[in-house]
Amino acid sequence: MNLLLIGFGAVGQGFAEILHEKSARLQERGFAPRIIGVITATRGGLYRRDGLDIPALLAAAAAGSFAKYPQQAGLRRDVSAQGMIADGAADALLELSPTNLETAQPALDSCLAALEGGLHLVLANKGPVALAYPQLQRAAQARGRQLRFEATVMAGTPVLSLAQEALAGCAIVSARGILNGTTNYMLTRMEAGMSYEEALAQAQALGYAEADPAGDVEGWDAAGKALILAQALFGAPLRLTDLAVSGITQISAADIAEAKARGERIKLIAELSAAGGEVRARRLPISDPLAGVSGASNALTLETDLLGAVTIVGAGAGGRETGTALLNDLLAIARAENR
Amino acid sequence: MNLLLIGFGAVGQGFAEILHEKSARLQERGFAPRIIGVITATRGGLYRRDGLDIPALLAAAAAGSFAKYPQQAGLRRDVSAQGMIADGAADALLELSPTNLETAQPALDSCLAALEGGLHLVLANKGPVALAYPQLQRAAQARGRQLRFEATVMAGTPVLSLAQEALAGCAIVSARGILNGTTNYMLTRMEAGMSYEEALAQAQALGYAEADPAGDVEGWDAAGKALILAQALFGAPLRLTDLAVSGITQISAADIAEAKARGERIKLIAELSAAGGEVRARRLPISDPLAGVSGASNALTLETDLLGAVTIVGAGAGGRETGTALLNDLLAIARAENR
Repeated sequence: MNLLLIGFGAVGQGFAEILHEKSARLQERGFAPRIIGVITATRGGLYRRDGLDIPALLAAAAAGSFAKYPQQAGLRRDVSAQGMIADGAADALLELSPTNLETAQPALDSCLAALEGGLHLVLANKGPVALAYPQLQRAAQARGRQLRFEATVMAGTPVLSLAQEALAGCAIVSARGILNGTTNYMLTRMEAGMSYEEALAQAQALGYAEADPAGDVEGWDAAGKALILAQALFGAPLRLTDLAVSGITQISAADIAEAKARGERIKLIAELSAAGGEVRARRLPISDPLAGVSGASNALTLETDLLGAVTIVGAGAGGRETGTALLNDLLAIARAENR
Repeated sequence: MNLLLIGFGAVGQGFAEILHEKSARLQERGFAPRIIGVITATRGGLYRRDGLDIPALLAAAAAGSFAKYPQQAGLRRDVSAQGMIADGAADALLELSPTNLETAQPALDSCLAALEGGLHLVLANKGPVALAYPQLQRAAQARGRQLRFEATVMAGTPVLSLAQEALAGCAIVSARGILNGTTNYMLTRMEAGMSYEEALAQAQALGYAEADPAGDVEGWDAAGKALILAQALFGAPLRLTDLAVSGITQISAADIAEAKARGERIKLIAELSAAGGEVRARRLPISDPLAGVSGASNALTLETDLLGAVTIVGAGAGGRETGTALLNDLLAIARAENR
């Protein structure tokens, strides 16, 4: 399976590392993925039909420019996303560039070009799924290609596979959870005594915060994930304006201490049904299962028709953790193709 | 998809109810399952190539005998499991008879006959999977049939799909959880002030307890599930003798009150790795995520190589809840066949 990557930040690098580490084991299972092209906004691009060398790719990325990637036979450096897709050697596009929740561009155009060119599409970028899921889905179905986006919600914790595949016989009635790892980490640190500013600085130092921290702390990252869940769980094409969104910027260390004194915790909670939803900081009694979810973990409770509540808790941030979701999505595509 | 059922207790009846309620919606999705045969130890058997009527089947089961099922063209009442399989009209066998952890019989023979006859096999009965998984797996692979058993662990909560499919790219290093709904319900009631005997009587009245309550309270039900998890998560063919097993029969209301006074809860915990494991009552600090799992819920934390801990919490008992797992397994088989 030949892969094109658009974007090569923490997620793309985490994914490449995993692919390299697991390569022998994956081959034993009959799965041999190969990165043949990478395009970035700041480091340049690389394309080679016979595959790129992952350690060299990671070294060039760490050095800040793909100009540091060594010359190889068949290597091209002057490539565009559309050019790589049109070349016809790739089987799947991984869209890993930063999320734009206003227009989803320029990622949306590449995604549509990939599907129309007969590639499978796997996303970590939330924009195209949050804003244009029906259009992507139609393009995928028209060419019999798969559209997967596990990495867009709860990093590698497989909540979409859980809802859409493992629970395929159940209807999901509503969902409620902690969808942003950065703010949950910050709230956990503030409970331990840090100020808002200290907690944010530490979240950024650990690489949890998104490119623009405002997206995390004002609730927009969680809201984008809520839109994706609305599509995936309920088939509901909600818009950002269907959600009431606020974040944790108004929460002080004093609020958290006061909640703690009452046996409560403050969490940034997304609540969602087919009709709409909201993202806001809430006080939860300590007995609420979501109150116990700490650090950069995320959690989602799915309310189902047949089973009642099913809750999944796991990593909610991190480059390798999100890269894991990309690998799991590719394995699902390979399983479907081998049948 | 034509189905044979062996066993028609709470799980079989819950499954049949769900199939009937969801029939229109499943057909819209291109999935039209039909129960064509049912065999029980105490109510008799029914077989009809054109399908059995589910409401009439449920009414006859409630009345205690399939002799009450009305006469229909093509209906046979004198059928054996082997005879139904040999007739060649069925696509899948659902083995739902009571678990026997000593020999797995008579279920194991029917399971092997079904796979050798080219049927898919779906189990709620733990015996054949716990004791003879490698043999079943070889028989399934030899005929290109699927072997699925989500219903054997955590009722309908899809922990096996989670580990084997949604997390296919991860290695599972160890697992730790609450696998028996009956005892977790009893411990929760005892925490609220009931005696052991009262809590057991209430668990039985609610239909949570297995046919033999000793299997629950002495830890054997959880141990059987641990053997299944060892196979499914680690590919490790452990035996019951590889596990240290004890239950909750030694736990008194006083023990529970004492734990509560120290900010702890007593839970029946299964711990498992490829090398072995144990099932025993443990005191957990209230901050342990498993301490918050109450009533008939179950939970399992999977320790993974790439993602750290992933925890799933959901229903751990109940006929309809377990029947839901059978439906989800059949949908997974149908997805694989349609690709």
